[in-house]
Amino acid sequence: MNNKQTTVSEEHLLYFQQLLGNRVHTGEAVTAHYASDHTEDFVFYPAVVVKPESTEEVSAILRYCYEHDLIVTPSGARTGLSGGALANHGGVLLSLERMNRILEIDEHNHQVTTEPGVITEVLQQAVREKGLFYPPDPASKGSCFIGGNIAENSGGPKAVKYGVTKDWVLNLEIVLPTGEIMWTGANVIKNATGYNLTQLVIGSEGTLAVVTKIVLRLIPHPTQTLLMLVPFRQGTQACEAVSKIFMAGIIPSGLEYMDRDAILYTIPHVDDAPDILKDDHDAHLLIELDGFNLDVMMLDCEKIMELMEQFDIDEILFAESEAQKESLWKLRRKVGEAVKSHSIYKEEDTVVPRFQLPQLLSAVKRIGKAYGFQAVCYGHAGDGNLHVNILKGTLSDEAWHNQLPKAIRELFTEVVKLGGTISGEHGIGLVQRPFMDIAFSDIQLDLMRSIKQVFDPKGLLNPGKIFPDKVI
Amino acid sequence: MNNKQTTVSEEHLLYFQQLLGNRVHTGEAVTAHYASDHTEDFVFYPAVVVKPESTEEVSAILRYCYEHDLIVTPSGARTGLSGGALANHGGVLLSLERMNRILEIDEHNHQVTTEPGVITEVLQQAVREKGLFYPPDPASKGSCFIGGNIAENSGGPKAVKYGVTKDWVLNLEIVLPTGEIMWTGANVIKNATGYNLTQLVIGSEGTLAVVTKIVLRLIPHPTQTLLMLVPFRQGTQACEAVSKIFMAGIIPSGLEYMDRDAILYTIPHVDDAPDILKDDHDAHLLIELDGFNLDVMMLDCEKIMELMEQFDIDEILFAESEAQKESLWKLRRKVGEAVKSHSIYKEEDTVVPRFQLPQLLSAVKRIGKAYGFQAVCYGHAGDGNLHVNILKGTLSDEAWHNQLPKAIRELFTEVVKLGGTISGEHGIGLVQRPFMDIAFSDIQLDLMRSIKQVFDPKGLLNPGKIFPDKVI
Repeated sequence: MNNKQTTVSEEHLLYFQQLLGNRVHTGEAVTAHYASDHTEDFVFYPAVVVKPESTEEVSAILRYCYEHDLIVTPSGARTGLSGGALANHGGVLLSLERMNRILEIDEHNHQVTTEPGVITEVLQQAVREKGLFYPPDPASKGSCFIGGNIAENSGGPKAVKYGVTKDWVLNLEIVLPTGEIMWTGANVIKNATGYNLTQLVIGSEGTLAVVTKIVLRLIPHPTQTLLMLVPFRQGTQACEAVSKIFMAGIIPSGLEYMDRDAILYTIPHVDDAPDILKDDHDAHLLIELDGFNLDVMMLDCEKIMELMEQFDIDEILFAESEAQKESLWKLRRKVGEAVKSHSIYKEEDTVVPRFQLPQLLSAVKRIGKAYGFQAVCYGHAGDGNLHVNILKGTLSDEAWHNQLPKAIRELFTEVVKLGGTISGEHGIGLVQRPFMDIAFSDIQLDLMRSIKQVFDPKGLLNPGKIFPDKVI
Repeated sequence: MNNKQTTVSEEHLLYFQQLLGNRVHTGEAVTAHYASDHTEDFVFYPAVVVKPESTEEVSAILRYCYEHDLIVTPSGARTGLSGGALANHGGVLLSLERMNRILEIDEHNHQVTTEPGVITEVLQQAVREKGLFYPPDPASKGSCFIGGNIAENSGGPKAVKYGVTKDWVLNLEIVLPTGEIMWTGANVIKNATGYNLTQLVIGSEGTLAVVTKIVLRLIPHPTQTLLMLVPFRQGTQACEAVSKIFMAGIIPSGLEYMDRDAILYTIPHVDDAPDILKDDHDAHLLIELDGFNLDVMMLDCEKIMELMEQFDIDEILFAESEAQKESLWKLRRKVGEAVKSHSIYKEEDTVVPRFQLPQLLSAVKRIGKAYGFQAVCYGHAGDGNLHVNILKGTLSDEAWHNQLPKAIRELFTEVVKLGGTISGEHGIGLVQRPFMDIAFSDIQLDLMRSIKQVFDPKGLLNPGKIFPDKVI
C-alpha cells in the first residue's frame, strides 16, 4: 500500500468542505454509521465520509483523491453481504446516498434512467405505477440501493425466470478513478459496438469505477401470481424436485428452498408467521408462477402438483389470498436476518447448475458433520443458488477461526467440482477473497488484476476487495 | 505494425505441418476461399490457413505465433457483415471449421456445451430434438457458426423477445494470444465471482482471445407460433406502430420492418414468393408471437390488430399454415442478400431506442435525398435495429468514395443523437472503424485499447479491427 493515504489531512478536509459544504463528515459518531454493512461483524472506520449530489461532484472528488493518492471506497445502502462497501483501509468513504433521484421513466421505450442511490423497491414501485416491471429483487430490496445491485450483480428470487441485475442494464454513466466521466454503452437492447464495458463494470464491486447514472430496460408488469408451498420429508428430494419442474417445460418466477432449521429460526422473527412446519418436514419449496393469464398459470400449477407426487411430500399449501402470499414471502425473506441473529455465523453464497443441487446439499451436510458445525440452508433453488449459513453455536473459538476456513475451502472445492462457483449473487468483497484461488487460476486472476490496473492504475478505488493477496 | 509478421516462412510452415499434418493450406487457390466474407467486396489473402481440431492445437498455434510475432486472424464460416474475420494483414488465418462437435446437451440443466465451428441452425435443431430452445437466430443461421455469433454478439429476429447471443452464454473456454487456456466463468445462471470476462469476450470480434468451447443456457421450446403481415401506406407509421405494441404489454417473438423497395428487390430472388405487395404499400411489418397456449396468443393477436387500426393500413395477412409462415419468413430472410445482389452497396446496422425509429427512418430519407443515394431499409424494428442498405446504383465513383462517407457520418451522428449506436448486431470489424469516434470519446476508446493490450500485449490477434487508426 505504498504512498496510498488511509488518513485524511486538514488540507484535504478543507478541499472537500469547499466542494461539498456540510456534506463532509468526520468523527467517530458519524463515521461509525458507515463502518458496517450486513456482513458478519465487520467494522471499518473511514477517515471521512463525503456525500456528492452530482456526477460532477463525484468526478471532482475522485480527481482530487487521485492527485493526492487518497484511498476511496464507494458506498451505497451498506446492505451488502460480502463487505464490498466497507472502508477496510480507512480513507475516503464516498456515499452515493444523496444521488437518489429517478431521472426519467421512458414509457415509450420501456426504460428508466436513475441515479445509484435510489432504493430498489422505490424504483420498482415507480415504474410499476406505469405498468412496467424491473424484476431483480434481492431480499434487501426495501433498503438496498440500485447502485449497490449493479456493483454486486444482485439476484433475488425472480432471477430464476428474469435473470439477475446484469440482464437489465443497458447503459451506465461512470466516473473513472482519474475523475473522467463516460458512458459505458448506449440506450439500446442490441449493441455490437466495441467491448462490453457495461457488463465489465456490473459486478466489479466498485473496484473499477463509480457508477453515477443507470439506464435499465423494463417489461410489462405481470398481472397475476400464484404461490404454493410444498413440504418435503427429505431435503435432498426437494432439491431433486427443482430440476423436474424445469424439465417439464415450466419456468417459475420464484423457486425457493428453505430447510427445516431455516423455518424454525425464522418463525419467531415474523409477526403472525404462517403455521407451516410439521414434525416430519425436512424442507420446503416455495414456488411462484407469474403471468397475464390465470387459466394458463393454473394449468402449470396442476402440472407442478402432479410432478411433486413422485416425492415423499406432505400436503401442498396453495396461497388463497394476496395476504397469504405476502405472509409466505415475508417468512422467506426474513430467513437470512433471522438465522444470523441466532448465533455468530458465516454465510456462503454457493451456486451450482440446478440439477447438481442435491449433491451440493449432501456435501454441506457431510462437511458440516466432519467439522462439527451446524449449517442452515435456504435460497434460490431454481438457480442452483444455495445460501449456506454456518452457525458458530457451541463451536470453540479455535475451531471457528482455524478449522472452519478449511471446511469452507472443502465446500467451495466441491462447488467448483460440480460446475458451480463461490458466489452467485453476494459478490466476493472482503469475505470470499481468500477462496478465489478455488474458482480461478493465476492466469484468470492476473487477467482480472490487469483489467483493474487499466481502470485504476494507482489502485486507489476500493482496494483489498475481490482479489486474494498475492505473494510476489 | 513493427515486427509483426504478415508473411509466413518455410520454417513456420514446417512447424504448422508437424502440428496439424495436412490441415495447413497455402497457395492462392486455397486461401482465396478464405479471403472474403459477406461484407461488401472485400478480398484479403491470408499467407496460410490452419485448421486445428482441438483446444490444445489452438493453444500450440497461438503460442508459436506469439513467439514468432505472427499475425493471427480467427475465422469461422465467414458470413460476417463487417469484415471481422478477414486477414486484412495477411499472416495466419486460424479457421475453427474443424472444431464442429456439439459436446454435450445437458437436459437436466438446460445447457449445451459446443465447439465454435457448429452451424447455429444445426445446434438449434439438436437441442430442439430434446424440446429445448436456443433462440438467437441471425439471418445466416443456416451457414454461420455459433463461434462467430459469440465473436459478433449476433442478434436476429427473435432478439426482440429473447435477447441477443450475449444473453445466452454462461461460460467460454478461450485461448489467449500467448497460448494460455482458461474458462471465463462457470456453468451457472448467477455468478458474482470476479469480473465478467465472459461478457467481455462476447462481441470482441476475435481481438481478445480465440473461443474454443461455449456453454449456452437453453429454455423449453415454445410449441406455437402465430404470424401476421401488416401493410402500411406510410413507412414512418409502420415505425410508429412498433412501440405501440410493446406499450400495450405485448412482447412479440419477431417484429420486422421491410420497406417497399426491400420487398420489391427480394421477390424475384425467392421461388414462389408470396404476392404481398400492392401499389399503395410503402412498408410492411411482419409480426410473430410464440408461446405454449394458442388461445392466449390469439388474444394478443387480436389486440395487435386493434392497435393497427389507428394507422393507414391495408388488409392484414394472417398466416394460415406452417408453409405460409415459412414463405413469409423466407422472404424476410432473403432481403439482405437480394438487395445486395442488385447493386454495389454499403450496409449500415443502425440501432436506436425503438420509439425513435420513425425519426431514424426520416433521417435516412433526408440524408439520402441530400446526397442523392437510394437506401433500402429493413430489419429488426422491435429492437430499434434498422439495416440501411445504401445502393451505388447510378452514383458516380467520386460520389461513392468521397461523398458517401460524409453521408454515413451524418447518419451515424443522428443515430447517436437519438440515443442509439452504430452497430446493433453486425459488429465494427473493418467497415465501421472509421466511425467509432462518433459512438465513443477518446477516453472510452483508450480504455478499450488498454483492455485489448492486457489480453494481447503484442497486438497480434486480429489487428486492424474495431479501433480507428490513432494519430499519435
